[in-house]
Amino acid sequence: MPGMGIPELDLDADVVSLTARLVDIKSVSREETTIADAVERAVTPVPHLDVVRDGNTVVARTDLGRDERVVVAGHLDTVPVNANLPSRLDDEHLHGLGSCDMKGGVAVGMLLASSLSEPNRDVTYLFYECEEIEAEHNGLGRLARTRPELLAADFAILLEPSGALVEAGCQGSMRVDVIGRGERAHSARSWTGVNAIHAVAPVLERLVAYEPRQPVIDGLTYREGLNAVGLSGGVAGNVLPDEVRVSVNYRFAPDRGVEEALAHVAEVFDGFELELRDSAPGALPGLDRPAAAAFVEAVGGAPRPKYGWTDVARFSALGVPAVNFGPGDPALAHTQAERVPLAQLRHCEQRMRAWLTA
Amino acid sequence: MPGMGIPELDLDADVVSLTARLVDIKSVSREETTIADAVERAVTPVPHLDVVRDGNTVVARTDLGRDERVVVAGHLDTVPVNANLPSRLDDEHLHGLGSCDMKGGVAVGMLLASSLSEPNRDVTYLFYECEEIEAEHNGLGRLARTRPELLAADFAILLEPSGALVEAGCQGSMRVDVIGRGERAHSARSWTGVNAIHAVAPVLERLVAYEPRQPVIDGLTYREGLNAVGLSGGVAGNVLPDEVRVSVNYRFAPDRGVEEALAHVAEVFDGFELELRDSAPGALPGLDRPAAAAFVEAVGGAPRPKYGWTDVARFSALGVPAVNFGPGDPALAHTQAERVPLAQLRHCEQRMRAWLTA
Repeated sequence: MPGMGIPELDLDADVVSLTARLVDIKSVSREETTIADAVERAVTPVPHLDVVRDGNTVVARTDLGRDERVVVAGHLDTVPVNANLPSRLDDEHLHGLGSCDMKGGVAVGMLLASSLSEPNRDVTYLFYECEEIEAEHNGLGRLARTRPELLAADFAILLEPSGALVEAGCQGSMRVDVIGRGERAHSARSWTGVNAIHAVAPVLERLVAYEPRQPVIDGLTYREGLNAVGLSGGVAGNVLPDEVRVSVNYRFAPDRGVEEALAHVAEVFDGFELELRDSAPGALPGLDRPAAAAFVEAVGGAPRPKYGWTDVARFSALGVPAVNFGPGDPALAHTQAERVPLAQLRHCEQRMRAWLTA
Repeated sequence: MPGMGIPELDLDADVVSLTARLVDIKSVSREETTIADAVERAVTPVPHLDVVRDGNTVVARTDLGRDERVVVAGHLDTVPVNANLPSRLDDEHLHGLGSCDMKGGVAVGMLLASSLSEPNRDVTYLFYECEEIEAEHNGLGRLARTRPELLAADFAILLEPSGALVEAGCQGSMRVDVIGRGERAHSARSWTGVNAIHAVAPVLERLVAYEPRQPVIDGLTYREGLNAVGLSGGVAGNVLPDEVRVSVNYRFAPDRGVEEALAHVAEVFDGFELELRDSAPGALPGLDRPAAAAFVEAVGGAPRPKYGWTDVARFSALGVPAVNFGPGDPALAHTQAERVPLAQLRHCEQRMRAWLTA
């Protein structure tokens, strides 16, 4: 029986029901097979779509020979579960892991894909994997390397949570291990060794004292951040460790490139050994580009800066103008209390539909 | 084929060869099956010994009806491998993981066990597991709970490295998790959360600033220590963690009990949540007790304080006077450069043999 065990997604449902259904399919990064199967199963029968499955990424395209092609994209994965599943509905919000980041956006994209048989622009809908973890796993990144023709477009919209407003550009992100070194010794005779954990005390002190920049670019104010996101070290309960790592995440405004950002981190942790683990450049707002300006005009509202890194930067690097526009407060992404306003789900769907059918 | 795959230990070999053979059988804590099999296989055929296997602990006893019974004990496990296997011999030392802590002592015990058919005291030889990890796994501790009759004795000698001198008493040890708490948030909008890793900066600062006590007890100077031995925390590379743990090991002189020691740790980390993971009381030197004094007299040399926790404390708690006496510099235990002087291996074997045959 093909499809046995694959959850069914009803594309005739309203956007709230579909979002709830997507939230209830657990899809922590690298565990997206079930949700990707469900999405593929739902869009494959739609007659006006060509569907391609690549890993746990699903691409569904119209091919109407329009003058312009746009990408409408959303990632399927979430951060780890934090006692916030299954979804819960109240009068104003849908609550639950991924409701905000970004299954609300995915639901909007899926409903447009299934219902718009003759959009005014050709559309490439992308539902992809591994956005929340190291950039090397990102499904969109893999397509850019292996099947770039699937990403070709004149303009791209990422349905990332943006409060149903256009958010332009994005900050870059970099993870660096700051390494403390020592010399192992039995902890009962600690004076014969050097404790690597004690050696990183200044690393934490500098993080606490750090004052992030807030540069203004194209009239938008960005906010940087420098945070430890992981700690690891230890050999055994009675041994002074000889190596410890503080994993630091630097979020940098798009007026800085990766090299400049790394130089800044090196300056902050002067005297410590660093290991760059992962980096992704930001994207300048680019609201002066015609396609972006036209979209802003069509959906309305004053554009805001995007703090989080999004795949806007990936399209930007491919030469495709891109913006974020999706339901949900980005400040709630990755928090236990994640939720999405029902009104924003409906608003985004309606504005996108209007833009693609005008 | 019984015994297939069990390494053979030649008990007619000299103490250096036997130590090297034992070092070359890898036996990190909880992986002692092979070495315990080998020890059991070697001592079982010895006609004057009654052998009992309990988990990966081997007990071999004489039963000659002597007035006095002594325990001669050594643990079979080591700390994790640190690029220091296999063993290597030079003119003065045997090098390698466990050479010092404490397969030299185990070799001494095994040779005494096999060769002394009529010792002047009945002897209980104990070769046991899991001394280097949480006290709950300790093989001697399990025997004390389940088969205490096997530990009954008038005096006990732990063959722990002590520079071939009598080391008296031992320091206590306690592991406490110091917990930092925060509130998760997306690291791109870190101002919306509280970083638990940054919250433990004062924990590391206090460890760096800490000045350990050096109390004098029965004329012996002890040296305490307070050290982080592990760090853990982190949810994902783009999430501010809401919990982080610094695992701290406090080694305390035997004038402090466990409760007093915990109160001291709580004072040092005032304001932080603590979780006691493991504790083992120390043992006062007790050199005034007749059995201990007689042994010191017989093997010679000036007694020293024992810094590390050893199972001396376990015997002490059972009411059995106990001392450490074994080959190897205790300051080298748990270091990559572990080694044991050949002269000390021979000296310990000779002194123990003389004491048990006088």
